[in-house]
Amino acid sequence: MTIAIYPGSFDPVTNGHLDIIQRAASIYDEVIVTVMSNSSKKPMFSLGKRVKLIEKVTENLPNVVVESYSGLLVDFADQKKAKVIIKGLRAVSDFEYEFQMALMNRKLNPQVETMFLMTQSQYSYLSSSVVKEVAKLGGCIKGLVPEGIEAEVVRYFNEH
Amino acid sequence: MTIAIYPGSFDPVTNGHLDIIQRAASIYDEVIVTVMSNSSKKPMFSLGKRVKLIEKVTENLPNVVVESYSGLLVDFADQKKAKVIIKGLRAVSDFEYEFQMALMNRKLNPQVETMFLMTQSQYSYLSSSVVKEVAKLGGCIKGLVPEGIEAEVVRYFNEH
Amino acid sequence: MTIAIYPGSFDPVTNGHLDIIQRAASIYDEVIVTVMSNSSKKPMFSLGKRVKLIEKVTENLPNVVVESYSGLLVDFADQKKAKVIIKGLRAVSDFEYEFQMALMNRKLNPQVETMFLMTQSQYSYLSSSVVKEVAKLGGCIKGLVPEGIEAEVVRYFNEH
Amino acid sequence: MTIAIYPGSFDPVTNGHLDIIQRAASIYDEVIVTVMSNSSKKPMFSLGKRVKLIEKVTENLPNVVVESYSGLLVDFADQKKAKVIIKGLRAVSDFEYEFQMALMNRKLNPQVETMFLMTQSQYSYLSSSVVKEVAKLGGCIKGLVPEGIEAEVVRYFNEH
Amino acid sequence: MTIAIYPGSFDPVTNGHLDIIQRAASIYDEVIVTVMSNSSKKPMFSLGKRVKLIEKVTENLPNVVVESYSGLLVDFADQKKAKVIIKGLRAVSDFEYEFQMALMNRKLNPQVETMFLMTQSQYSYLSSSVVKEVAKLGGCIKGLVPEGIEAEVVRYFNEH
Amino acid sequence: MTIAIYPGSFDPVTNGHLDIIQRAASIYDEVIVTVMSNSSKKPMFSLGKRVKLIEKVTENLPNVVVESYSGLLVDFADQKKAKVIIKGLRAVSDFEYEFQMALMNRKLNPQVETMFLMTQSQYSYLSSSVVKEVAKLGGCIKGLVPEGIEAEVVRYFNEH
Repeated sequence: MTIAIYPGSFDPVTNGHLDIIQRAASIYDEVIVTVMSNSSKKPMFSLGKRVKLIEKVTENLPNVVVESYSGLLVDFADQKKAKVIIKGLRAVSDFEYEFQMALMNRKLNPQVETMFLMTQSQYSYLSSSVVKEVAKLGGCIKGLVPEGIEAEVVRYFNEH
Repeated sequence: MTIAIYPGSFDPVTNGHLDIIQRAASIYDEVIVTVMSNSSKKPMFSLGKRVKLIEKVTENLPNVVVESYSGLLVDFADQKKAKVIIKGLRAVSDFEYEFQMALMNRKLNPQVETMFLMTQSQYSYLSSSVVKEVAKLGGCIKGLVPEGIEAEVVRYFNEH
Repeated sequence: MTIAIYPGSFDPVTNGHLDIIQRAASIYDEVIVTVMSNSSKKPMFSLGKRVKLIEKVTENLPNVVVESYSGLLVDFADQKKAKVIIKGLRAVSDFEYEFQMALMNRKLNPQVETMFLMTQSQYSYLSSSVVKEVAKLGGCIKGLVPEGIEAEVVRYFNEH
Repeated sequence: MTIAIYPGSFDPVTNGHLDIIQRAASIYDEVIVTVMSNSSKKPMFSLGKRVKLIEKVTENLPNVVVESYSGLLVDFADQKKAKVIIKGLRAVSDFEYEFQMALMNRKLNPQVETMFLMTQSQYSYLSSSVVKEVAKLGGCIKGLVPEGIEAEVVRYFNEH
Repeated sequence: MTIAIYPGSFDPVTNGHLDIIQRAASIYDEVIVTVMSNSSKKPMFSLGKRVKLIEKVTENLPNVVVESYSGLLVDFADQKKAKVIIKGLRAVSDFEYEFQMALMNRKLNPQVETMFLMTQSQYSYLSSSVVKEVAKLGGCIKGLVPEGIEAEVVRYFNEH
Repeated sequence: MTIAIYPGSFDPVTNGHLDIIQRAASIYDEVIVTVMSNSSKKPMFSLGKRVKLIEKVTENLPNVVVESYSGLLVDFADQKKAKVIIKGLRAVSDFEYEFQMALMNRKLNPQVETMFLMTQSQYSYLSSSVVKEVAKLGGCIKGLVPEGIEAEVVRYFNEH
């Protein structure tokens, strides 16, 4: 049985993330979506809220679970007996950063492999940051985030 | 049971290729190393010879088989009931080409996923072309190709 | 009145090219699609045939004309009183090559500006080469080239 | 009549920006230089000051106007009946970010096209940030910003 | 006699930095490792502490000296009569930033050349930031920083 | 005394190459411009002719010598007791190829360092290939190659 971890900030989860989750879930026996805290940025949604939103949009995927974690990713992989870390790649700038992270994680724990999926072309321009930027300026985010998330993001910027 | 295909020209197989094969074999139930013909370049070794050389250096990996194929990769994946195509990434230039190929293969057959592994840093400069270039000029290729392959490559350039 | 030139090999024209032509035609008064000969590659279709195929798929665009040319692009721009050269960008590797070409053309003729459009994301993996590669191996090219071109490409590879 | 928007922070306007403005003004009937606020960075000059400085250095270009805007760029294009957004590209890192923005803007409003000009090679290393960095450390910024701007930037860092 | 400057933040110095220092010291008559202040980031170690740590790990290199500096790099080069600035390159993103810096420094002082060394492949994923990230989360940094530095970094994160 | 090798095809030498030679000559005690044969491309000028042309344009540089070589570059460096290989970088695509070569040369001979200079911005679009392309189509190559070379290149394309 192969368990895979899909880590990220998911603030908020986008349709690009959801596509990666679905594709990973069709290959691996279990996919643990792992919401990581990022101490250097003030998040839009709390860790707990982000977990709930992803659980909502993945409820039809029986082999997907969602958890949050604040430590070293390879330690979490160890605890969960996960052999694989999943990452999506959109562009060259992703590639270089992820390359560095994958090599570092390999150094820290050679038992865990990082595997990459290319983001589908229609999501190549999509990131959580750009969703927040558009929403903040009052632009329409339909099609950028899963349907269940859209209202939450819009409400956030109405209130902030 | 997840079957993965690892396609390439492997002319010749390098230590970078072998590293990807070993890592893929630890994750997937079966890995089919697939030697592809490339009509636009005159190869050093024939398809059959390349299959034999890879069989020799992977004989200790029970879940790895080696085959050759000349058609559309996604059709081969279909025949073999493989859900995954494995590719190694070394650099940005690899990334862009593989990105294009992965999206095209997805268009041709959405049932097959391409997954990428980062080449280990000590093999980041290694390619079949650079091995041939060095061997042709009489340089030492120890550490660049698996031990069993070294003599074959050197002999080829002594004879050509 | 602003006349723009859209140069390329178009061997064959793809849906990505057609998208650029349509978008350029909505901005400039006249768009001259310019089929360039490329002495270093043996083409699939002759210059004249490529002109005819593009004329066929752009017949609904009244401000688009198609011509062929074999000399220096900036000289052709001069003859046609074109102020703008249009190029599509798909990826970083395109970018660097086109950057070099744009700077060189500027050096040769500072009166002509090169302007770039980003290829739409669904065509980001599409090139004439990959279309030929897929067609040659018997893959389906529906959606990759304009409908009127598809049969011609398939026939070519049945005959060669 | 084709109206083009050239958006940016212009904090301060550089000779690279001025070059793009001049080239755009020779192609389009009207160019609206649009000073955008960027809430995440504390600017050197206020929006209003930046508008005035650009007006000063473009006063000899009759078809250039300068405005400021704080909302969604494609909404501003709509209000102004602009069909084109102009962006300058210096390097691969620009390219990827601008690619993402162009695709997002296209999603938000398919009627507006983003067109790119390559920065002239002598300005390829020039950005507002690097100008500020140099000025702050007391370096000479002659040739980096338009003449009328130089004294303003130097005065700012003498006072801060 | 050729004097070279090797500038950086070195917060903390890594094995990748040390490798560049050693290689530069084998080519140039004198190498001045120059610890620069970076006003936009709060450092882990003070300028003075960083100088001491680098002195400690380079004490066996007689032609290496360590200094700190807060102004324009090319002015420091002038003061020291250094003809060469040394920089290490790990990846494409380094390359573009360093390219911009090298051209700007050349504009500010054409007498000083920037020369680049490629980071050895085993250090390609290594940066001061990633070291701090790993240490902060309690990961092992053995092999990432020189032996004499390791305890200092670990102690810092125990106390902060 | 530090001897540096500057290898290349130089078919023909461009103003970009000459700029690198001049800058290298101001740093190292001796610079050996090394004209390499490239078996995979039919050259415009013979090895001997290329040596003569470079000698002609560097005759005012007393510490520059020109030689040709057909073997492994690091062996040539050994013979010449050269500690440094010089390469010019123009763009990201150069960077990745040169990175691979530098790491391979380091593996073959760790005593020789590859050092990189950034091409000046006005030459960033310049390569031997683009010079030949322009000359072949009758474009003006003034400013692209040293004065003494211009007539030779033009004559070649008049005769071929």
